[in-house]
Amino acid sequence: MSMCGNCTTCQSADKVLEGFIDSMDMETSHHRVESQKVKCGFGQQGVCCRLCANGPCRITPKSPRGICGANADTIVARNFLRAVASGSACYLHIVENTARNLKAIGETKGTIKGFNALNKVAQIFGIEEADNHKKAIMIADKVLSDLYKPRFEKMEIVEKLAYKPRVENWKKLNIMPGGAKSEVFDAIVKTSTNLNSDPVDMLLNCLNLGISTGLYGLTLTNLLNDIMLGEPAIRAAKVGFKVVDTDYINIMITGHQHSTISHLQDILTDEKVVEKAKKAGAKGFRLVGCTCVGQDLQLRGEHYQEVFSGHAGNNFTSEALIATGGVDLIVSEFNCTLPGIEPIADEFKVKMICLDDVAKKANAEYVAYSFEKREEISNYVIDEAIKSYGERRGNVKINVPQDHGYNDVITGVSEESLKAFLGGTWKPLVDLIAAGKIKGVAGVVGCSNLTAMGHDVFTVELTKELIKRDIIVLSAGCSSGGLENVGLMSPAAADLAGENLKEVCKSLGIPPVLNFGPCLAIGRLELVATELAEYLGIDIPQLPLVLSAPQWLEEQALADGAFGLALGLPLHLAIPPFVTGSKVVTKVLTEDLETLTGGKLVLEDDVVKAADKLEEIVLNKRQKLGLK
Amino acid sequence: MSMCGNCTTCQSADKVLEGFIDSMDMETSHHRVESQKVKCGFGQQGVCCRLCANGPCRITPKSPRGICGANADTIVARNFLRAVASGSACYLHIVENTARNLKAIGETKGTIKGFNALNKVAQIFGIEEADNHKKAIMIADKVLSDLYKPRFEKMEIVEKLAYKPRVENWKKLNIMPGGAKSEVFDAIVKTSTNLNSDPVDMLLNCLNLGISTGLYGLTLTNLLNDIMLGEPAIRAAKVGFKVVDTDYINIMITGHQHSTISHLQDILTDEKVVEKAKKAGAKGFRLVGCTCVGQDLQLRGEHYQEVFSGHAGNNFTSEALIATGGVDLIVSEFNCTLPGIEPIADEFKVKMICLDDVAKKANAEYVAYSFEKREEISNYVIDEAIKSYGERRGNVKINVPQDHGYNDVITGVSEESLKAFLGGTWKPLVDLIAAGKIKGVAGVVGCSNLTAMGHDVFTVELTKELIKRDIIVLSAGCSSGGLENVGLMSPAAADLAGENLKEVCKSLGIPPVLNFGPCLAIGRLELVATELAEYLGIDIPQLPLVLSAPQWLEEQALADGAFGLALGLPLHLAIPPFVTGSKVVTKVLTEDLETLTGGKLVLEDDVVKAADKLEEIVLNKRQKLGLK
Repeated sequence: MSMCGNCTTCQSADKVLEGFIDSMDMETSHHRVESQKVKCGFGQQGVCCRLCANGPCRITPKSPRGICGANADTIVARNFLRAVASGSACYLHIVENTARNLKAIGETKGTIKGFNALNKVAQIFGIEEADNHKKAIMIADKVLSDLYKPRFEKMEIVEKLAYKPRVENWKKLNIMPGGAKSEVFDAIVKTSTNLNSDPVDMLLNCLNLGISTGLYGLTLTNLLNDIMLGEPAIRAAKVGFKVVDTDYINIMITGHQHSTISHLQDILTDEKVVEKAKKAGAKGFRLVGCTCVGQDLQLRGEHYQEVFSGHAGNNFTSEALIATGGVDLIVSEFNCTLPGIEPIADEFKVKMICLDDVAKKANAEYVAYSFEKREEISNYVIDEAIKSYGERRGNVKINVPQDHGYNDVITGVSEESLKAFLGGTWKPLVDLIAAGKIKGVAGVVGCSNLTAMGHDVFTVELTKELIKRDIIVLSAGCSSGGLENVGLMSPAAADLAGENLKEVCKSLGIPPVLNFGPCLAIGRLELVATELAEYLGIDIPQLPLVLSAPQWLEEQALADGAFGLALGLPLHLAIPPFVTGSKVVTKVLTEDLETLTGGKLVLEDDVVKAADKLEEIVLNKRQKLGLK
Repeated sequence: MSMCGNCTTCQSADKVLEGFIDSMDMETSHHRVESQKVKCGFGQQGVCCRLCANGPCRITPKSPRGICGANADTIVARNFLRAVASGSACYLHIVENTARNLKAIGETKGTIKGFNALNKVAQIFGIEEADNHKKAIMIADKVLSDLYKPRFEKMEIVEKLAYKPRVENWKKLNIMPGGAKSEVFDAIVKTSTNLNSDPVDMLLNCLNLGISTGLYGLTLTNLLNDIMLGEPAIRAAKVGFKVVDTDYINIMITGHQHSTISHLQDILTDEKVVEKAKKAGAKGFRLVGCTCVGQDLQLRGEHYQEVFSGHAGNNFTSEALIATGGVDLIVSEFNCTLPGIEPIADEFKVKMICLDDVAKKANAEYVAYSFEKREEISNYVIDEAIKSYGERRGNVKINVPQDHGYNDVITGVSEESLKAFLGGTWKPLVDLIAAGKIKGVAGVVGCSNLTAMGHDVFTVELTKELIKRDIIVLSAGCSSGGLENVGLMSPAAADLAGENLKEVCKSLGIPPVLNFGPCLAIGRLELVATELAEYLGIDIPQLPLVLSAPQWLEEQALADGAFGLALGLPLHLAIPPFVTGSKVVTKVLTEDLETLTGGKLVLEDDVVKAADKLEEIVLNKRQKLGLK
């Protein structure tokens, strides 16, 4: 049954999913696209201000200023900076918790799974220490110390981690970040009532936040996780609803903070725990991946082959996943956990446990995660899962479409595993680019949304256009979930690529779209870009590399985007952020920025035109490098 | 000339000001009330969400959830918590800078002006140290250390500073704040896309933020300033435009961070500096107070009789103040500096210097304040003021209405100066309350806005109603600016009070409305309440004390309000915060909260009804205390 009566709005690039959702007799986000189709133009253009009791005020040609005197430029920049700061805060929250978990592992002499990563990070940080646990503690402390610096003290790791020519650029622009948490804090102050009114100052502030978001929230979170959770290794894996095996007690995981559930994932295959499941009538426990924490597990799937059944889908697949009936318990520790899953989880009698109060769901039980109490928490989750399994199986309709998904998605791609795959050097990739076999590289990253042509539609179509033009695509974020579930990350997708890229893919046995995993792995793309630039002795903006976050959704994506712009990369978006009501802000982001960092925003809501523009940028950059 | 053509919207309680603004041939905030009179109902009710690219979404009966599934309760609570967190951030920014300035004074063995305050704070903090400079450093360090704690570490000063029964209540509710900056940070995370969806969790979070806002942002900022800038002493002072003496070079100060301009205020009367002014043709320099930093100078006016000419007015008086032509330079270091002053400052050739980039104005020069560079900065400001004076005098129309304001406003009221005035004990006040000579106490606090009947109209009318009912009014914030400029803080206002209160005022020679100064001094009202409760051996919610922020304006006011609610006080607002679209949020704030902290929100947009409700609460509390 269709809930909305107008299925043209409920499009998904994933047709099996679309059919499943269409047949549901419960409302999902997909259905609500219709009921929320009338959009507020003021909000979309960013010219609505709700900061004070004189308002809300809205800018129109007849009322060019709010009551306080703020014009469109001030209001738009203020709203935008606040969104970027909030998104930045989310990623910094993640890296802080990740560092604390690493520190606790060091202190308790716990298991370190990624020694290469440990040594690599220690070397970057300039840490000389023989004992691995002490090394882990020192690494964590350096991260935490930077995060907690006041704003007037610059963070130390930035200069150690970022590419030198970029650091020079950032110093010139005076956007080197002080203590990351204080930077966010003061950006929030800046955007409060009757404070900053300078749009250019606020936009430069976005870049500053982008740097700490990228280097700490993204890059370092990956590296610290590599130490704790094991380094990615390339392998073929299953994705889609078919990963759900109803013979097991299935725990759906959703969020972004992998280290928070690592104890759970480690003990779910313990003999005693499996015994518990068997007593309840199941074969054991399985983790079903959803959103980015699922992508992170998939990325490290080599280390968790038994407990992890695979990645089911991205944010807007989660409601349907629960509605398959195959999920027995949800463990969530961050976004992108839609509030829309709440009534569906209730209907399907799926209990929900939240491990972090920043992501407390209205209908969920909150169990505060702490490293010290990890045993107790994992045992509680296991007991609740068994209870839920017992209560719901037989009482709830289960219908897991086994035709949804793929068996041969290439996963586990990281800056290290990719280089290793290439023989330990970037030379083969550089040679292929130089020879024109690969025209350029596009990072198609970020979220999934429902309004840029439908669920993952723009992402998938743009990716097809890019690979057709021999541009290899690297993906990270919910976008990966969409791309893998339509087969673009399986080797057979090589046939969709242009002749040159197809040849490369076939000879290497890889798909034309490489899956780096969670949105956090945008930080891995930065490492790839840095290493490529370093190898070539050029700056990042000179690379034939473009970014697109075609279906960006969240405030976090805006902070990621600010990182891309600070790196000097062109960034395409299909839906503009809420800034078009300001000429100054739009011009700075889409034009002037190029003269500052080398990056710029490319706004284009037509797939082919977007691909044309990105290809043109790639060709331009090739030309400047003297490549045909 | 009237700009808007409809003067009924440009009301001010201050009729001289209203006439002046009406005669201006430039647009002010007052005029823009008309052009922004059509309000967005979704925004006003808080049911508009702009957190993601699927939106903006708006809740209506036909679309009860946003695309993601968030309902009105989630959206409203999220918007509200984000506003409270942002307001909290503003106050914490102030106390952090204040503590850093105190520390720098200690380290450089600079001038300490308030030894009573120094000893009082040292005692509260449990610091035993003979050397005053070291003591100052230790005090500052304790504040900074608390602010920078992670969220999972509770702040130490809370238990030392807050009233014990309140601390017990807050512990029971699990709202004792961890590191204040991290609490704000995580509240911002909580309110980002697809994170927390639990309205009750988010409302309790507001109380937690209210506690750190109140105790640190408000109370401690006052006490630290008392140490550095001198303790308030009760005195009569001039207010209104008449404080502007055009024989001098006039520097208008606006913001909230008094210690940032303290070096400037100290050297403006140095012989050499005065000589500079004289060379330029003026008699010397004067600081003209505007908004809260002006109130803070006025509060400590006893120590700055020469350099400070008086407080001209509140936030919505500032545009007119500049348009008098009597201001030669604006020095701003925080809000409530309206963007609306920018075109007026340009027109009147008044240069503007911002000392804190969080409050950088589009047309202003930014000069980063730092204690180390204070000499250089002050000299620069002085030179720029002289330059501006030279360029504008003779070229710009000057018309300072000398009939605006009063000569005999009673200022300098603080928790200490008031108790000293009463003979060093609260007994006389308690006796007057017990005898019914004073029925109760109302804190009429917060901002000034233009939409609750007009500029200061509700504040002034409500205050008149309260004193008529023998309820003494204590004021702090821009509300004080409005009340003093209509004469309610002059002794003659006793005639407007009820018979009992009038008798009290006449015998003591005080007005029925006491001026505690800036909004920061809401923290002083908390100290008064705590000391009264302590004296009586009861908890704060039992006192016949009510709060009203009738014309609240900014996000900061919401954070103040959250403090009031955490203290267990009834808080009246004439304009509701943007929460009425959620039944849950509205019910929790206006009803359920009373069973938790003892506080509650009272929403009433009719002056007499509001006074009736507040009086009824006072009478109820009296009755429960066994008073007639």
